[in-house]
Amino acid sequence: MQLHLSTWVEIEDYLMRSRGIVIPIGSTEQHGPTGLIGTDAICPEAIAACAAEEAGFLVGPTFNVGIAQHHLGFPGTITLRPSTMIAAIHDWVASLARHGFERVYFFNGHGGNVSTINAAFSEIYADRSLSADASNRGPVKCKLANWWDFGPVMDFCRAKYGASHGSHATPSEIAITWAVHPEAVKQVEMSPQVAPTGRFTDAADYRAKFPDGRIGSDPALAKAENGAELIVLAAKGLIEDYRRFLAS
Amino acid sequence: MQLHLSTWVEIEDYLMRSRGIVIPIGSTEQHGPTGLIGTDAICPEAIAACAAEEAGFLVGPTFNVGIAQHHLGFPGTITLRPSTMIAAIHDWVASLARHGFERVYFFNGHGGNVSTINAAFSEIYADRSLSADASNRGPVKCKLANWWDFGPVMDFCRAKYGASHGSHATPSEIAITWAVHPEAVKQVEMSPQVAPTGRFTDAADYRAKFPDGRIGSDPALAKAENGAELIVLAAKGLIEDYRRFLAS
Amino acid sequence: MQLHLSTWVEIEDYLMRSRGIVIPIGSTEQHGPTGLIGTDAICPEAIAACAAEEAGFLVGPTFNVGIAQHHLGFPGTITLRPSTMIAAIHDWVASLARHGFERVYFFNGHGGNVSTINAAFSEIYADRSLSADASNRGPVKCKLANWWDFGPVMDFCRAKYGASHGSHATPSEIAITWAVHPEAVKQVEMSPQVAPTGRFTDAADYRAKFPDGRIGSDPALAKAENGAELIVLAAKGLIEDYRRFLAS
Amino acid sequence: MQLHLSTWVEIEDYLMRSRGIVIPIGSTEQHGPTGLIGTDAICPEAIAACAAEEAGFLVGPTFNVGIAQHHLGFPGTITLRPSTMIAAIHDWVASLARHGFERVYFFNGHGGNVSTINAAFSEIYADRSLSADASNRGPVKCKLANWWDFGPVMDFCRAKYGASHGSHATPSEIAITWAVHPEAVKQVEMSPQVAPTGRFTDAADYRAKFPDGRIGSDPALAKAENGAELIVLAAKGLIEDYRRFLAS
Amino acid sequence: MQLHLSTWVEIEDYLMRSRGIVIPIGSTEQHGPTGLIGTDAICPEAIAACAAEEAGFLVGPTFNVGIAQHHLGFPGTITLRPSTMIAAIHDWVASLARHGFERVYFFNGHGGNVSTINAAFSEIYADRSLSADASNRGPVKCKLANWWDFGPVMDFCRAKYGASHGSHATPSEIAITWAVHPEAVKQVEMSPQVAPTGRFTDAADYRAKFPDGRIGSDPALAKAENGAELIVLAAKGLIEDYRRFLAS
Amino acid sequence: MQLHLSTWVEIEDYLMRSRGIVIPIGSTEQHGPTGLIGTDAICPEAIAACAAEEAGFLVGPTFNVGIAQHHLGFPGTITLRPSTMIAAIHDWVASLARHGFERVYFFNGHGGNVSTINAAFSEIYADRSLSADASNRGPVKCKLANWWDFGPVMDFCRAKYGASHGSHATPSEIAITWAVHPEAVKQVEMSPQVAPTGRFTDAADYRAKFPDGRIGSDPALAKAENGAELIVLAAKGLIEDYRRFLAS
Ligand code: NI
Ligand code: NI
Ligand code: NI
Ligand code: NI
Ligand code: NI
Ligand code: NI
Repeated sequence: MQLHLSTWVEIEDYLMRSRGIVIPIGSTEQHGPTGLIGTDAICPEAIAACAAEEAGFLVGPTFNVGIAQHHLGFPGTITLRPSTMIAAIHDWVASLARHGFERVYFFNGHGGNVSTINAAFSEIYADRSLSADASNRGPVKCKLANWWDFGPVMDFCRAKYGASHGSHATPSEIAITWAVHPEAVKQVEMSPQVAPTGRFTDAADYRAKFPDGRIGSDPALAKAENGAELIVLAAKGLIEDYRRFLAS
Repeated sequence: MQLHLSTWVEIEDYLMRSRGIVIPIGSTEQHGPTGLIGTDAICPEAIAACAAEEAGFLVGPTFNVGIAQHHLGFPGTITLRPSTMIAAIHDWVASLARHGFERVYFFNGHGGNVSTINAAFSEIYADRSLSADASNRGPVKCKLANWWDFGPVMDFCRAKYGASHGSHATPSEIAITWAVHPEAVKQVEMSPQVAPTGRFTDAADYRAKFPDGRIGSDPALAKAENGAELIVLAAKGLIEDYRRFLAS
Repeated sequence: MQLHLSTWVEIEDYLMRSRGIVIPIGSTEQHGPTGLIGTDAICPEAIAACAAEEAGFLVGPTFNVGIAQHHLGFPGTITLRPSTMIAAIHDWVASLARHGFERVYFFNGHGGNVSTINAAFSEIYADRSLSADASNRGPVKCKLANWWDFGPVMDFCRAKYGASHGSHATPSEIAITWAVHPEAVKQVEMSPQVAPTGRFTDAADYRAKFPDGRIGSDPALAKAENGAELIVLAAKGLIEDYRRFLAS
Repeated sequence: MQLHLSTWVEIEDYLMRSRGIVIPIGSTEQHGPTGLIGTDAICPEAIAACAAEEAGFLVGPTFNVGIAQHHLGFPGTITLRPSTMIAAIHDWVASLARHGFERVYFFNGHGGNVSTINAAFSEIYADRSLSADASNRGPVKCKLANWWDFGPVMDFCRAKYGASHGSHATPSEIAITWAVHPEAVKQVEMSPQVAPTGRFTDAADYRAKFPDGRIGSDPALAKAENGAELIVLAAKGLIEDYRRFLAS
Repeated sequence: MQLHLSTWVEIEDYLMRSRGIVIPIGSTEQHGPTGLIGTDAICPEAIAACAAEEAGFLVGPTFNVGIAQHHLGFPGTITLRPSTMIAAIHDWVASLARHGFERVYFFNGHGGNVSTINAAFSEIYADRSLSADASNRGPVKCKLANWWDFGPVMDFCRAKYGASHGSHATPSEIAITWAVHPEAVKQVEMSPQVAPTGRFTDAADYRAKFPDGRIGSDPALAKAENGAELIVLAAKGLIEDYRRFLAS
Repeated sequence: MQLHLSTWVEIEDYLMRSRGIVIPIGSTEQHGPTGLIGTDAICPEAIAACAAEEAGFLVGPTFNVGIAQHHLGFPGTITLRPSTMIAAIHDWVASLARHGFERVYFFNGHGGNVSTINAAFSEIYADRSLSADASNRGPVKCKLANWWDFGPVMDFCRAKYGASHGSHATPSEIAITWAVHPEAVKQVEMSPQVAPTGRFTDAADYRAKFPDGRIGSDPALAKAENGAELIVLAAKGLIEDYRRFLAS
């Protein structure tokens, strides 16, 4: 069930039977010579849609621009500052809490978002923790999960890509985008075959260290059919994890 | 050309031939008994995609949650506070300016966004206007246009829906969502046939005055085939208006 | 009745019989070669004072610096950033609501303020709409009206100035300031007689397009006696519109 | 010379011969049973106008709402939060610096503003102090002075009012407002004759301790003719102090 | 009793018998050729510890970085912007109020903090004053006192250092740090013996006027044994003043 | 070398030979029935002091209040909101960068700080990444490390405390505080011996799940002599890790 394709009457009904929602959250950032700029939003959105269809839960709109300041050396990247992202997540959750949602599950497609999303949760909880009238406020709980962190997904990636998986512009995420958008499959020669790894700070530093945008990965290993498998594996992980969260 | 489906290399190439981008901007809010909560994001996204395919310009990610505080009385609505939305638009435009974009065209699907988007533009320009080192900063210009404001679109709506068009949950926007998402067509009896009109302030006030969420409209008049026509009409308007903007 | 010239005891009494207040809101910005920098504050202040005397309502202090970033290319202009103005309007309205005011009518003298004032209203309402304890908060409603938007005022301007009225440093606003401040009447040759029109972004862009600061106007048409008439016409419009608002 | 009654051309000329400006800054707050709510804005505005006429310097718009949270227990009071006031003063000074003003003299009518104005100055200076490109920024200096702090003004008050001068709703400030607004003179029996003194925190605490709003004063001692004298004395002090500041 | 060296159970007990706490608040900034960068934090911390031991009250963590933008011309200085410091003090006090603390006494070691601390108090009180549900919020009162402002401390300094005391890098504050940290005593020839005095704005301005960082002082007069005496004198002053505050 | 115990001249010298600094960062929060509220600040401060003495690097002031909203159900806890902490870290780093520091190593004592510190780093880098004049800004790099994450420290804890180590109010952190503050050793019977584990959201939720404040730990296992060993082990880890960072 997609919030965007539902009416308010349908959501009112849904809230009678469930107090939970899944929010795909990604980024708009370069993903190497062949990866799509929308990769980090496309992946959790596709997995969540697949899971929602099977398990019947509600999926909200995709939070599609995140923390990508370090990718700004590559054209097309868009970032929020962390303080802006915290304010926006605060407003999304406050809106949902207003309707009676009690479990908001952020399903994430971008490692660079993790710290800021967690900081946003603390900001939201601090409102209640500092408040004398806390009992007035909704008991909403938030959770963050990355699609690549479910055990079977990790096993799959290890088996298929080994040391060439890397951490940015990975063959797994690119495979998923190809399964979803076959019209956007792109292939170029990678040089070097496997990208360098390392730490980085700002956009200039990142671009100097990772000249084509990849970190540690060989995206040429991606295949659309692996993407389809990954979606199914991750959807299964999501359904289980989300159910545990609902029950918490 | 879709930013989300492009690589950074493709955007680098694009910037050689054009310095402009279109950003669909909408809202996530109730649209009456049959309208989709995503209506205001779906419409500009669909029109911009259609126009971009024909005219070859770049479309960025959809800014999909806007100013909808007045709709919070209806489950499923999500809002940003205006101060948050200003910060977010600021960050999107600053990111694009960093890459050399000089024209950012916000293509809007929600009347309630207009004031805040314009305030965000002033916030962005004020950075430059107040700055002693303004010459250092990108000469980016922003423009806001609503899809329903192009002459031929207005003529079409007047001809088809007359006084039953209204201003929220209108048959025209619902027709567009049906053209895009035929799987999400919903029909219920409207009562009254044409919704009341009036002014409103906060969510409680709105819900008291517009009990099913519509304002002045009869969405039962919507037809998917009208939606397809509207998309074409609005895409034509967008192409012309965007070209004028590029040339400004 | 002027808030600034009243005691708190008098306001306490006033609140027994009315819950409304009018706040003149303007700008401090260049108004062409002869227009006063205070024009946009002087006009609504004078009209509101005239109306208040006749109709007995309360007028608050003038909010005298607004959104004028685009005029910063001309010495003397002072601007707020939109985010600052939203915070300030929020605080003014929160203070008034604290006393039991339920209708705050912002009477505006500057087109550039409109978006930000409306965004501020949404910010204020969002506090209530997002709040679980909304019932605790005052039911304050805000309204924005521009002095030049009343029908008879527009008719007068059309009749007197026609196509030379323009949109910045207009003969009508200048006439009003001359009626209020005859000691500050200034005359210089305008060149061209009627200023150019067009769109603008930041201060540098504005000054390049409108070298003497005017947009589309011939302020040499202004006459102090027209200013006096305009004050009376606009005051009449204000009284009617404010009464409708009180009754809403 | 009044900024509000000048054209930008006149300010451009003025900047050739002086880089300084005086900004009256006050508050909108209760001033006891007979004091005007506008007292703290009226006083510095009147004194600055008197001084400017004699000494030929420029006076900007009055910053008319300040820090008055502690007076919110009395109807009519309007406050900014300190964080809002800091942002607003920042924007005013940034605007003036943009034009080449190098000395901004805030002439204050309200003791409660002092800390926040000084904090705003630090906020403005910190921008420069923390900046790697500080040399790009205007060398603007700010100064705060209270009208009642000039020696001859203090002597006058001591001589005329002695221990009944107090610190809020003082006979001196009320005398000035009467000199400026004879139409707004109000007289009621004070009880007790001299108000209590003490410290306070928020609005509820203040109202509990100072039931009619005065602190330590007997405003019944005020006479309009003293007000006229005080204006002249304070204007003289302002001229001298401002000149020292210009030369610093 | 030190908060940092207590358990929550001990604080729970303490709150049964007292609702007050002392927070030492200082700065991290240059203190001339021999003064420690931590001087302004070390002094109030040491005095508060001494007083707390004698009088049995609770001392919280030291707020050790304050408003020092004007010292940024000297390596090692760290500043907060005033807006940041206001937010931080707000959060500290809100946390303490949550536990039932009703008196928070900020014991200050840095003159440059005074305005911002007072502005922070107004920000905290404004939350309550503007709030419709103020009765829900804790009745917390805040007070600021500087360690050098107690009468006997001032007498001591006048007697010992006379006109060479100055206002920054004073022999008294340096003596205290030497009493606390004998391992950090440093001596260099001062030139000139007594530093210049004057006003300042930003870091560049400050460094130009006070080349070695001192204002008006001769820190070579400092002796560790005077520091020990000063701690005792100031602790006595603190105990008395804090008790008055508790009783208020 | 301690910043607080240095003069600006000494820091100027230090900057000739090194561009790095270590900032201990902790929290002020309950640590179970026997743990000190200052535990998370005391540990990194003590370890950093030990390491600095051996390796000769500079240690800045301890950032002693962090993200502890979830502990506010226990008296004595003080928290910052994440948005406040981000602003404060931003200001600290901007101050240090102003002086030429290029490596700022935050040495952390509190797991709850991790996300917000990382978000603060992104906020700082985003300033540069979004900026057209990035080359003007200092090339400062930030790093976060937790004292318990060095391999030998983890080995020690595993060996000594096994499954009773837990994650809050752990015997290792308590042992360190006892080594530093033997006067503050406290012993009470733990019940249950090993505390429960689990996830939490706000303060009410935390207190309901962890009634005495501990998570998964048996702090009764702590011994002061283990604390001394841990300090040495962690100091060794810090020296190595910091050197790698300096060289990066
Ligand atoms: Ni990715
Ligand atoms: Ni719509
Ligand atoms: Ni105007
Ligand atoms: Ni006053
Ligand atoms: Ni000092
Ligand atoms: Ni800990």
